[in-house]
Amino acid sequence: MIEINRVVPRTLPGFMELLPDEQILFNKMQETIKNSYERFGFLPLDTPIIESAGVLLAKTGGETDKQIYSFSKGNTDLAMRFDLTVPLAKYVSINSNSLTFPFRRYQIGKVYRGERAQAGRFREFYQADIDIIGNGELELINDAEIPSVIYTTFKELGFDNFTIKINNRKILNGLFLSIGESKRGTDIMRIIDKVDKIGIENVRNELNELNVRRDAIEKIMSFLAIQGSSDVKIETLKELSKELSIDNELFKRGIYELESVVDWVRLFGVPEDNFVVDLIIARGLDYYTGTVYETFLDQYREIGSICSGGRYDNLAEFYTEKKLPGVGISIGLTRLFYQLNKMNLINISRRSISEVLIIPMDENLNFALLTATNLRSNGINTEIYLNSNRKLKDKFSYANKLKIPFTIIIGNDERNSGMLTLKNMDTGKQSLLSIETIIAQIRQK
Amino acid sequence: MIEINRVVPRTLPGFMELLPDEQILFNKMQETIKNSYERFGFLPLDTPIIESAGVLLAKTGGETDKQIYSFSKGNTDLAMRFDLTVPLAKYVSINSNSLTFPFRRYQIGKVYRGERAQAGRFREFYQADIDIIGNGELELINDAEIPSVIYTTFKELGFDNFTIKINNRKILNGLFLSIGESKRGTDIMRIIDKVDKIGIENVRNELNELNVRRDAIEKIMSFLAIQGSSDVKIETLKELSKELSIDNELFKRGIYELESVVDWVRLFGVPEDNFVVDLIIARGLDYYTGTVYETFLDQYREIGSICSGGRYDNLAEFYTEKKLPGVGISIGLTRLFYQLNKMNLINISRRSISEVLIIPMDENLNFALLTATNLRSNGINTEIYLNSNRKLKDKFSYANKLKIPFTIIIGNDERNSGMLTLKNMDTGKQSLLSIETIIAQIRQK
Repeated sequence: MIEINRVVPRTLPGFMELLPDEQILFNKMQETIKNSYERFGFLPLDTPIIESAGVLLAKTGGETDKQIYSFSKGNTDLAMRFDLTVPLAKYVSINSNSLTFPFRRYQIGKVYRGERAQAGRFREFYQADIDIIGNGELELINDAEIPSVIYTTFKELGFDNFTIKINNRKILNGLFLSIGESKRGTDIMRIIDKVDKIGIENVRNELNELNVRRDAIEKIMSFLAIQGSSDVKIETLKELSKELSIDNELFKRGIYELESVVDWVRLFGVPEDNFVVDLIIARGLDYYTGTVYETFLDQYREIGSICSGGRYDNLAEFYTEKKLPGVGISIGLTRLFYQLNKMNLINISRRSISEVLIIPMDENLNFALLTATNLRSNGINTEIYLNSNRKLKDKFSYANKLKIPFTIIIGNDERNSGMLTLKNMDTGKQSLLSIETIIAQIRQK
Repeated sequence: MIEINRVVPRTLPGFMELLPDEQILFNKMQETIKNSYERFGFLPLDTPIIESAGVLLAKTGGETDKQIYSFSKGNTDLAMRFDLTVPLAKYVSINSNSLTFPFRRYQIGKVYRGERAQAGRFREFYQADIDIIGNGELELINDAEIPSVIYTTFKELGFDNFTIKINNRKILNGLFLSIGESKRGTDIMRIIDKVDKIGIENVRNELNELNVRRDAIEKIMSFLAIQGSSDVKIETLKELSKELSIDNELFKRGIYELESVVDWVRLFGVPEDNFVVDLIIARGLDYYTGTVYETFLDQYREIGSICSGGRYDNLAEFYTEKKLPGVGISIGLTRLFYQLNKMNLINISRRSISEVLIIPMDENLNFALLTATNLRSNGINTEIYLNSNRKLKDKFSYANKLKIPFTIIIGNDERNSGMLTLKNMDTGKQSLLSIETIIAQIRQK
């Protein structure tokens, strides 16, 4: 006998690994998102998880952030992708002559970030992205289609009460420009962003501490005071632009874009209850240049934004001189699943892969196997319990553990009559039925 | 203007990255395999791509093969999975108390091997595996279900002419045992394996060079001479066992298992044309312990086996004392796709995501958007061409480039009449139809 040096098996912290019943839910969510993206005609993309470090980290000049998984193999410096946007930029730059623009792609895949390990933080996680990339230009109306994709996707995921917040970065940038604070925009934004948490007076105090000029603070205060419906906010913005003499083109262009996008979003069929203009959201300061989106579950704001994104002027400036403007969104699927599952909010009824388990009562398998093939060729996921030496109780218990909704018992009587006993595992009800009736019943469910 | 240090974008050699029309084909293949695996009730699994190096390389005592991608992050030694079997062993060992046995799982995911870069060799590639794991024991009949999964999967992929070769490792091992060559089994096997290429006499010569005893060589020669149908081969084996007095239990058990599996494979509905007993196939010598499978496209033998696997006694001996016998197969999806695509052998008609492109003739989008929503809610993937400032020719050209089969043109007439112009992009035929008729036509196609 060879001696074996055993290793204690473990899965690394921050790496999600699910039991089958949860994996089924996860896959169903992922499939729903994929189908929804495809419903709008987005094309699939699957880029490598590993890229040349120099290419992947072009923006940082090759300097690796601590969070990046990077390593060498042979003479090559490698890094694992930390999002799906940089690989998209690479892909479009390389293939721009072969792609058809506007290039509408989705990608659902794992990305890697060495986050500090804690509950709900993942080092390996799925992102589910869509982007629309123009060659040279991309019309504004594309910004209005994105909320309709978000709306459809979360409806398909079983949610009704969610709100897509829409803003335009040009408005905030124009405001900062008008008060001579373009350079400190990031700092000011960070303070403004806390208004819901710390209140308007504390925002004023913090801006004071930052030595923002008093008249500039007052302008910001007037801006933060804007309330009301999406349309009222836009009208107020226009008035404010006159009152406070914010007359730079950026600000005005931002209002125009926001108003146009909101009008179109209605045309695209997103109900009033599911979107709203929010003049505060900004989504980080150095990437997005126009429309931005965040999405919240109305009753679970604490989860944070479940789908975010926006418009950018230039996807791939680190790879190509070509101007590639785009607009896109990302769903952090792993984190979303984790949160929803924890709160029992996943509205998916199906919890099994097999729709029916065939239980042969003896070792004469012929009829059982024919029945399985018949069901399968009718599109029904069918499993046969093959371990004949178990008790019947154990076989039913197997079906229950896997949450398989139906069993078909096949013994001598069934073989002779051709009629089958179908047991509904939820109700316990047994019926003697023809195979055709069984197929119809299972399909119906 | 900020100066940008551009990097030349590239994708690493050995990492497949497809253009959209090929990605659609790839995804369709992957989805077909997934659906086929689920049709038999296999449960989904998704393990991390990164594992603790010590855990992943337990079998090698932590020593890393040159092909393994391994690196450190912080204080942790990490490695990227090189197959889906070791992660399965880890997973079952960790979760054995939560899983229901027999545990039937599939996993389709990327694995990593630092192969020498050459055409058709990939460093990142998909494997699509199924395994059935027993807790302590797993009945032999499970070995017979696997070929029916292979059969269904390749039929669903559009192939008719393929052969699943079936053998049992106990037969070869029993033969080697009977000639006192158990220890050199691997070497002898390697020579035998070349019989189709080098011919029987060269096999004899090489065995001579290896200093195999003359009477042992004669036994091997008699074994290699076995020809005929699956049943004839099995009967000949039985006779040979008497003639050559190969009377060890291993050899006899192997014949019994092979005969039983072949009988059951027929019951499972695999046609005679699609499977055959092949007494030579062995699938490497240290892992499989019983039934083994290889699958070949009859007209394209040069591709090699497109689906292989077998029975093993112990999945996870490096992690647990629990005996976990299993049987499984793997499809090397990336390589298979590469080969089939190169030879134009992928039998998938659908080449687009969108089934219809809506082309608005003017800036009045209302009716076009309503139509899109209507089509989508009827399950039809629908895209709207939103760049209004392009010529009509460009819009049709977009549909053609993306191989979208239908376009719907919406202008003033259509808005007023409610009747839509559907253009079949293959035939060029245009018809004025109601939305209901259009939905029916597209669904039908």
